[in-house]
Amino acid sequence: METYSYGMIGLGVMGRNLLYNIADNGFSIAGFDLDEEKVKELHENAASEMKVKGTHSLEDFVSVLETPRKIILMVPAGKPVDAVLGNITPLLSEGDIVIDAGNSYFEDTNRRIADLASKNLHFMGMGVSGGEKGARTGPSIMPGGDLEAFHLLKPMLEAIAAKVDNEACTAYMGKGSAGNYVKMVHNGIEYAIMQLISEAYDLLKRGANLSNDQLYEVFKEWNNGEMNSFLIEITRDIFQQKDSLTDNYLVDQILDKAGAKGTGKWTSEQAMEIGVSIPTIDIAVTSRILSAYKNERVQASQLYSEKEIISPENTELFIQEVGDALYLATLISYAQGLALLVKASEEYGFEIPLKDVVKIWRGGCIIRSVVLERFYAAYTQDPNLSNILLDKEISGLVKSKIKSLRKTASFAASNGISSLGIQTALGYFDAYTTESLPVNLIQAQRDYFGAHTYQRIDREGVFHTSWNSVNN
Amino acid sequence: METYSYGMIGLGVMGRNLLYNIADNGFSIAGFDLDEEKVKELHENAASEMKVKGTHSLEDFVSVLETPRKIILMVPAGKPVDAVLGNITPLLSEGDIVIDAGNSYFEDTNRRIADLASKNLHFMGMGVSGGEKGARTGPSIMPGGDLEAFHLLKPMLEAIAAKVDNEACTAYMGKGSAGNYVKMVHNGIEYAIMQLISEAYDLLKRGANLSNDQLYEVFKEWNNGEMNSFLIEITRDIFQQKDSLTDNYLVDQILDKAGAKGTGKWTSEQAMEIGVSIPTIDIAVTSRILSAYKNERVQASQLYSEKEIISPENTELFIQEVGDALYLATLISYAQGLALLVKASEEYGFEIPLKDVVKIWRGGCIIRSVVLERFYAAYTQDPNLSNILLDKEISGLVKSKIKSLRKTASFAASNGISSLGIQTALGYFDAYTTESLPVNLIQAQRDYFGAHTYQRIDREGVFHTSWNSVNN
Repeated sequence: METYSYGMIGLGVMGRNLLYNIADNGFSIAGFDLDEEKVKELHENAASEMKVKGTHSLEDFVSVLETPRKIILMVPAGKPVDAVLGNITPLLSEGDIVIDAGNSYFEDTNRRIADLASKNLHFMGMGVSGGEKGARTGPSIMPGGDLEAFHLLKPMLEAIAAKVDNEACTAYMGKGSAGNYVKMVHNGIEYAIMQLISEAYDLLKRGANLSNDQLYEVFKEWNNGEMNSFLIEITRDIFQQKDSLTDNYLVDQILDKAGAKGTGKWTSEQAMEIGVSIPTIDIAVTSRILSAYKNERVQASQLYSEKEIISPENTELFIQEVGDALYLATLISYAQGLALLVKASEEYGFEIPLKDVVKIWRGGCIIRSVVLERFYAAYTQDPNLSNILLDKEISGLVKSKIKSLRKTASFAASNGISSLGIQTALGYFDAYTTESLPVNLIQAQRDYFGAHTYQRIDREGVFHTSWNSVNN
Repeated sequence: METYSYGMIGLGVMGRNLLYNIADNGFSIAGFDLDEEKVKELHENAASEMKVKGTHSLEDFVSVLETPRKIILMVPAGKPVDAVLGNITPLLSEGDIVIDAGNSYFEDTNRRIADLASKNLHFMGMGVSGGEKGARTGPSIMPGGDLEAFHLLKPMLEAIAAKVDNEACTAYMGKGSAGNYVKMVHNGIEYAIMQLISEAYDLLKRGANLSNDQLYEVFKEWNNGEMNSFLIEITRDIFQQKDSLTDNYLVDQILDKAGAKGTGKWTSEQAMEIGVSIPTIDIAVTSRILSAYKNERVQASQLYSEKEIISPENTELFIQEVGDALYLATLISYAQGLALLVKASEEYGFEIPLKDVVKIWRGGCIIRSVVLERFYAAYTQDPNLSNILLDKEISGLVKSKIKSLRKTASFAASNGISSLGIQTALGYFDAYTTESLPVNLIQAQRDYFGAHTYQRIDREGVFHTSWNSVNN
């Protein structure tokens, strides 16, 4: 009987594409899916030189795999993962490795690691980013957990991952569920960047009356320069896409209600849990929620007469300022997400190598961008940097754009063009770089009404005051 | 043996003050605390006409209470509540009522309701706001849960609650754990308002160089007008408080690191869970987190040269604009919190009477304010109002202040004075009142890289496009 080096459970578009990518790189791989049709399609669409096999039962699937088995799961997060594990673990042998490549919640991964370890099986959480196309041609891959198991997989992962300067966009992300955690934060940053791009679009469209053709040119220019990144690139493309059902551009036919799969929400909740401030990610999550109130928004827009927008006098200058604001607000969003990883690494003992995180995000993934080269340089300089805004080179970059961010935020506030991402990025920056915040007043209030106590600037200890009511 | 109508477990400052308040109103009440000292103090500080009794064991405590017993818990949320319940429920009789008056998480209350119901006992969650002083002289009280039990307590609650226009600031908040939920959202709004006041303080202090004496005058004037509220009033007082250890004003000696007890975080997490957008509450939570990074902030403030603040030319006008901005941003924070209650009421079947919520918040509680009269009028007009911003009268008020909010947000952005609360209140308003948001682009992006599909503006259904890459 022929045997296969790898196995893939879940042959949806992501699983199938990742399987073909593995096969393309000369590794033999068997696939399984509950859906017979998908198993059939696997063969039909495989290139002849690929050594792939579709199987119709978990028993067949397991029996054709070389031991120790290396089985990748690409099934929806949550119950489906537990269901697969429940069915497959009785069929496995000591030392086999199960790699969950979906967007599982890190605490679920921790539980599964312990559960499979009790059966002498390895379980790993592995983030994969790049969408359908990335999975097929080279994603960014974020594995974590058991080091021994990781080393068995490493050659294959390096072969299938995206490459930047001939280096594979995959590295060990740390202990336990670090791989899922890093991917979760990746997605949180992705939410923030998408929100920021949509705001730049709104400012240029409603603020300066740019057409889709002009927007295309702007994003094209941005993508050819220091803003070169996956999300800017596809936004450029989007403005050129014609609708097949009307004569319009497709983007104008799309309803302004955003969906969400939950990883952004997890990122925000996690940050609150462990005490990290990531307001631009939070606002991206809540803005998607707000977009869903379409009926109320229509009602409210009628009640509040249309705002009068005073377009900028110099359109060219405005475009440049909005671009710089987008660049800087994006950088600040990365700063927030990376700061979350620093704290999570301490909190959960992940030992996440931040330098490797930004290195492997440079290619393959949705948030890939040339700005990551800057972060990579910063972490190379100081692997323990608590926030990239504290790096000297980055600070120079920030200073060169901060005025544009201020002007853009002001324009948005004055003209009624909601720019929550841009505003929170600026507000975060201004708070983070301020030695004395007005939070002394909040502590005074808390002590006044709730005797919550406060600290002082001039001596150690915890203090409470019996505050005087002036008039009452 | 003398018997008592009510019992109080937990004689910390809140519990003791509430007990005295109950006794003041002619109800007899027994108290218990594990700390003998507190039991002793209870007698020492009681007025002679009060019928109160401190007990030294739960057995004694239970034995002196009239049946059905009505026992109020004022102990820290979480495990302490479960510990008390574990100890006391074996001593109780069918039909007895236990009322948790702490800031318990609503899901814990749901669990405890079910647990005590299985023992034929009533359990109620009841929010109490007003701080130490409110508890003693008249808090706002938010009971929910079993209606029969509520009616037994009602006369006492109405006696001890704050009064506004001779009406007691207490009402039935809805089924199950509605009382805790309403209190949680109350606290979330409280976080937002405190954040906003601290920003107004910062703008006036750093932006316009106002002294503490001048700030006192400003807040005094604000409190004498349409901004009359508990938090503005105590802020006024704070600016007059001298430090006992130095010759300075106390507020300037307090360290700018805020603490938090968790109810704000719960509010934000809940809103994300059930899909309600409350960005000004979120930002208040995350701003407290950010304030704790004191060392990093000091480092960052040195790296980023001090911002140059250009003070407003007309200080009087600036003060008025900041006041209007604070008023409107506060109103928008209430709107967010109340919208969360509307959705939670549907989601959890609470049947929360919004009109009664704003009615009982008018007095006694930390977020009491004359603006609540406006909301009360709005809900009287339409009890099913999904957002107070949709009320016609409120919209007139908003329109009269929106320009000041825009100018203040612009000033903050231009001058580097972080005003995350003001910015998010404005951004929320602008998004909420915009018919077409740029979220169509986000949906296009999601469909481009992840085949997440989109809806259209011109026909029903769910669509997916195979997007063209222009250059690649």
